[in-house]
Amino acid sequence: MTRIHVQNANDDGAFAITPELWTQLGAPEGASFGTTAEAFRTGLAEAEILVTATVQLAAHYPCPSPKLRLIFCASAGLDRLAPFGWLPPTVTLLNNRGAHGARAGEYAAMALLLLGGRMPAMIAAQHAGRWEKHYASTLRGQRVAVLGVGDLGSASARQARHFGMHITGIRTHAQPHPDFDRVVAVGDIDTVLLDCDFLVLAAPLTPATTNLLDRRRLGLLKPGAGVINIGRGALLDQEALCDLLDAGHLGGAVLDVFAQEPIPPGHRLWATRNIVLTPHIGADDPATYAADTVRIFLANLAAYKAGLPMPNRFDPLRGY
Amino acid sequence: MTRIHVQNANDDGAFAITPELWTQLGAPEGASFGTTAEAFRTGLAEAEILVTATVQLAAHYPCPSPKLRLIFCASAGLDRLAPFGWLPPTVTLLNNRGAHGARAGEYAAMALLLLGGRMPAMIAAQHAGRWEKHYASTLRGQRVAVLGVGDLGSASARQARHFGMHITGIRTHAQPHPDFDRVVAVGDIDTVLLDCDFLVLAAPLTPATTNLLDRRRLGLLKPGAGVINIGRGALLDQEALCDLLDAGHLGGAVLDVFAQEPIPPGHRLWATRNIVLTPHIGADDPATYAADTVRIFLANLAAYKAGLPMPNRFDPLRGY
Repeated sequence: MTRIHVQNANDDGAFAITPELWTQLGAPEGASFGTTAEAFRTGLAEAEILVTATVQLAAHYPCPSPKLRLIFCASAGLDRLAPFGWLPPTVTLLNNRGAHGARAGEYAAMALLLLGGRMPAMIAAQHAGRWEKHYASTLRGQRVAVLGVGDLGSASARQARHFGMHITGIRTHAQPHPDFDRVVAVGDIDTVLLDCDFLVLAAPLTPATTNLLDRRRLGLLKPGAGVINIGRGALLDQEALCDLLDAGHLGGAVLDVFAQEPIPPGHRLWATRNIVLTPHIGADDPATYAADTVRIFLANLAAYKAGLPMPNRFDPLRGY
Repeated sequence: MTRIHVQNANDDGAFAITPELWTQLGAPEGASFGTTAEAFRTGLAEAEILVTATVQLAAHYPCPSPKLRLIFCASAGLDRLAPFGWLPPTVTLLNNRGAHGARAGEYAAMALLLLGGRMPAMIAAQHAGRWEKHYASTLRGQRVAVLGVGDLGSASARQARHFGMHITGIRTHAQPHPDFDRVVAVGDIDTVLLDCDFLVLAAPLTPATTNLLDRRRLGLLKPGAGVINIGRGALLDQEALCDLLDAGHLGGAVLDVFAQEPIPPGHRLWATRNIVLTPHIGADDPATYAADTVRIFLANLAAYKAGLPMPNRFDPLRGY
């Protein structure tokens, strides 16, 4: 029997993988479950497979785990675990790609509609008790650039397509993708920035993408353009973004992720002009997250047992 | 030659029907254009057809207009002109149904995503500088009721369908409509209110719909339900809505229309809990409005000249 340990956080609430859910979805019997450091150590003394999330992994691993071969980490971006020197060569790391797209796509749709609808200005006017009309056009025909064509990026692109937008994907190499009208290699990102009405950041944070949207590149965006970040905060230069918003060069921004989370009290982000901030909630649906996570794990477990390539295998060198 | 007078407002800006646009879209030559009271009187002394909007009509009509047979009014809801005793039996009134759906549909989509995404609470937290997570589920499978199945209501329904919602239309009689999963007669509205997660008001304001969502009916909505109003403010009891929001019974509201516009300074709406207010901008796209208006007018003009039923004929008895 393959021993599996499932390590939840104490405060996971609706996101916890409970023994009941595990059984209900037909996952293998005999798994151990825990939330404490001791349960982690006890579980890993015997487990061949660990199912957990980045925070638990960072807190408790490495620890003696002679039989461990597989770590399934219930996050899409594993940047908090980088660099990956801690990963033994005998252990394969999997991420949770696929559990976030549906909710993240709706978040991106909302963000596009908020920015396209000039809502940041009207939210500010409402807060000040001012009746201040800002008419807006539909998204149809407007141009959106999406950095990253994975689960989040392609879900965002499908929403943008529904609204009749022209969609450019930006990825490592310029292979076409069916959810995008065109795909451009990240080396050519500057030409895309000059030309888009909206920029959606939906890439993993890796050495290659950290600060990719630096001050110079953010400055290439058209006057009035909107920025949406559902990837990771450090993909962009936050200070430069705030400067461009406060100066009125950019039309607005909707951000779910930040270089430092939580955003510290008093940080300028809270009071930046035409900005909508959400506290890293945009890609997690409590109604479906745990079940989707187990289903994705089970698909990988089946491949593992059959000796086939696992669809969620994480490449520590690429960083995704 | 059919004499046509086009009366714009002084402050119409992007919404004005200019002589250039008129010619560009192939409308009949020889029309007169004006923005002043005198231009209105001069135009109507000769005109068989008047193209204008509710505000101008209310301000300047009736006036001597012996040849007038047709008034095309560039608004969808003509409630501000009710009651219609001022309309001579020899004059047919047309509205601008069809010019608002695309933009209003996007507004409704945004409103559904804002409420479904629990954004009112996070917007308030942002204003207070608080990092306060509110996880939310996707709209898929949630139930939306739409009062009115016209241009705005059906556009809202098509957006809701994109998000995988279950959509109930509420109209005078229970005839099915392809954009709705089911249609219920307005006499049975109470059963729909008990059962929906979101209520979208997209009906014209008539004697039959005024205060239709009174305190009792709003109280039938489920705890946590969301209310969206893109129709007219007086469709609902604003005080009752604010009470239900402040008490935390309703989850949130997104309102574009109000019993009194502009909302007076200091009105409780400005500070109601979990409310998003926009100043009656949700159905007007400055990039397309004037051209769509002329195209809709021309379709009616062709029917008028051919002696066929005009698609935008307004029924003063029904009120839409």
